[in-house]
Amino acid sequence: MKKLINDVANVLTESLDGFAGAHQDIVALGAERKFVRRRQATPGKVALISGGGSGHEPLHAGFVGFGMLDAACPGQVFTSPTPDQMIAAAEAVDSGAGVLFIVKNYEGDVMNFDMAREMCGSVVETVITDDDVAVENSLYTTGRRGVAGTLVVEKVAGAAAEQGMHLKSLKLLGNKVNQATRSMGVALTSCTVPAAGKPTFDIGAGDMEMGVGIHGEPGRRRVALRQADAIAEEMVAAIAGDLNRKGQALLFVNGFGGTPAMELYLMYEAARKQLGKHGIAPARSLVGNYVTSLDMAGCSITVTMLDDETAKFWDAPVHTAALRWGM
Amino acid sequence: MKKLINDVANVLTESLDGFAGAHQDIVALGAERKFVRRRQATPGKVALISGGGSGHEPLHAGFVGFGMLDAACPGQVFTSPTPDQMIAAAEAVDSGAGVLFIVKNYEGDVMNFDMAREMCGSVVETVITDDDVAVENSLYTTGRRGVAGTLVVEKVAGAAAEQGMHLKSLKLLGNKVNQATRSMGVALTSCTVPAAGKPTFDIGAGDMEMGVGIHGEPGRRRVALRQADAIAEEMVAAIAGDLNRKGQALLFVNGFGGTPAMELYLMYEAARKQLGKHGIAPARSLVGNYVTSLDMAGCSITVTMLDDETAKFWDAPVHTAALRWGM
Repeated sequence: MKKLINDVANVLTESLDGFAGAHQDIVALGAERKFVRRRQATPGKVALISGGGSGHEPLHAGFVGFGMLDAACPGQVFTSPTPDQMIAAAEAVDSGAGVLFIVKNYEGDVMNFDMAREMCGSVVETVITDDDVAVENSLYTTGRRGVAGTLVVEKVAGAAAEQGMHLKSLKLLGNKVNQATRSMGVALTSCTVPAAGKPTFDIGAGDMEMGVGIHGEPGRRRVALRQADAIAEEMVAAIAGDLNRKGQALLFVNGFGGTPAMELYLMYEAARKQLGKHGIAPARSLVGNYVTSLDMAGCSITVTMLDDETAKFWDAPVHTAALRWGM
Repeated sequence: MKKLINDVANVLTESLDGFAGAHQDIVALGAERKFVRRRQATPGKVALISGGGSGHEPLHAGFVGFGMLDAACPGQVFTSPTPDQMIAAAEAVDSGAGVLFIVKNYEGDVMNFDMAREMCGSVVETVITDDDVAVENSLYTTGRRGVAGTLVVEKVAGAAAEQGMHLKSLKLLGNKVNQATRSMGVALTSCTVPAAGKPTFDIGAGDMEMGVGIHGEPGRRRVALRQADAIAEEMVAAIAGDLNRKGQALLFVNGFGGTPAMELYLMYEAARKQLGKHGIAPARSLVGNYVTSLDMAGCSITVTMLDDETAKFWDAPVHTAALRWGM
């Protein structure tokens, strides 16, 4: 295993300290590093809290800040955060207007956020994201997995909360965005979890995992690596077929951590051409490493169908470590 | 070779098309894709043009936009752009106030930008960056290599140009920033150039290349991989020793393309601790993949000593694909 780390036991804490230090104008760490919170709260608004296993950076801590999340709870690598983390985060950021949990659909995350919801003193609603069309059930899920589309839910709901939307409406909006969003991933290599010290899965030198999950979970099939256009064709067909809508969309090409920008932009172009065949026009775009799987090479394609409301909230100002525009 | 591409001959053009499509609010492609230019010019200001071999994305096209570059000329992967590209770019973006070329110190780049300067109809000044302390001469350079510090020169000079600074003063400012900047890199793996189809260099499973260049050129020495703190100690000692100044600085931890954010933030924390020992305090921070080497695992550390002028220009609004704040 080749990683820029000290002791595998301290990877998360040292990385969090670096993150908080590098972005101290935006975020602060909670006690015992249970959560990352905004440095400046917006009084009276609903608080948005997300979290999950680490190793997907910048998700979620990189999305804490004005116009997006109020707090993020980082678990150990690929491991759910514990309920006490979400409870502590809710106590720290609930200004009285309630809390919205945004949770990727993995059994551990769903269970622990649910326990936190029952145990904490805040009024809490939950949006569960499940945008991955690759498989219906998976290694760690009942139902579809929540993947890169979670970023879109957090951005849109975050903007709406910033503009004063109430808790019940935010839950409906979050669900609407999730239902308008589909993703699919492909891996060319495995990722390596620091504590494991070896690749999560073996993959042949000429193979790819089509439909891979963001922890390296199996996808639809292991096949020979094909050209980018053919990969994009299969992924976009799966996404567009499942969406079964035409119109304007956000096209989000997400790197898994080990794939350079040059390839991600090439995949964006390949996906854009394919979307046109399905009557979907990219009206907004995002390309980069946002919902990663440590050092895995590969990418995912996410499409969110936009209406006037979601486009407006997508465009609204955001000021986080990883997404920043309009201010 | 595992890459998300179609034909190796078309990697650059397809990636540029994707880049221009994804960021069409900010940039446009020049004829024959000779350059990437800003969509909206600022009338009367000095035009900043950079460029170099591709494979370092988002450098340089990702820095085209308000407050930074007016155009970037992309060569083939790790290959200098040709003079006709810089000439075409200068013709497109010179508003009459002259042109500043910002060029990384590699023989091919320096020669081709120099030929363009002589042949084009604009008044041109040049700033050459050579921030890499690792080696004094290198595979492709006489003198030190220009690496991640180039971003800082482009950001500071870009902000100054936006605020109306004249050409001669911009050249002096660019040189001042370059002289206040030092970088050093470390590679854990090689990169793979698409047209070559195999890794640029071989490296043992337990080794690292200390002082690597951004094309995978040899650095100071090949040694056994050490812990992050020890790596940061050596890199920061080389940087701070060469700077030989104390005070406030920008600390920029740059990923080479294959290293996840979690490790980059851990390295930021390691570097921050080391800087303190040399009397340097990080007053500004940047962490991420900005000056990459395709899919190489590793990172570089860049330190720029700040004064009131450079800090002000660093903080000034910027709106590019890869750097965006203040607007």
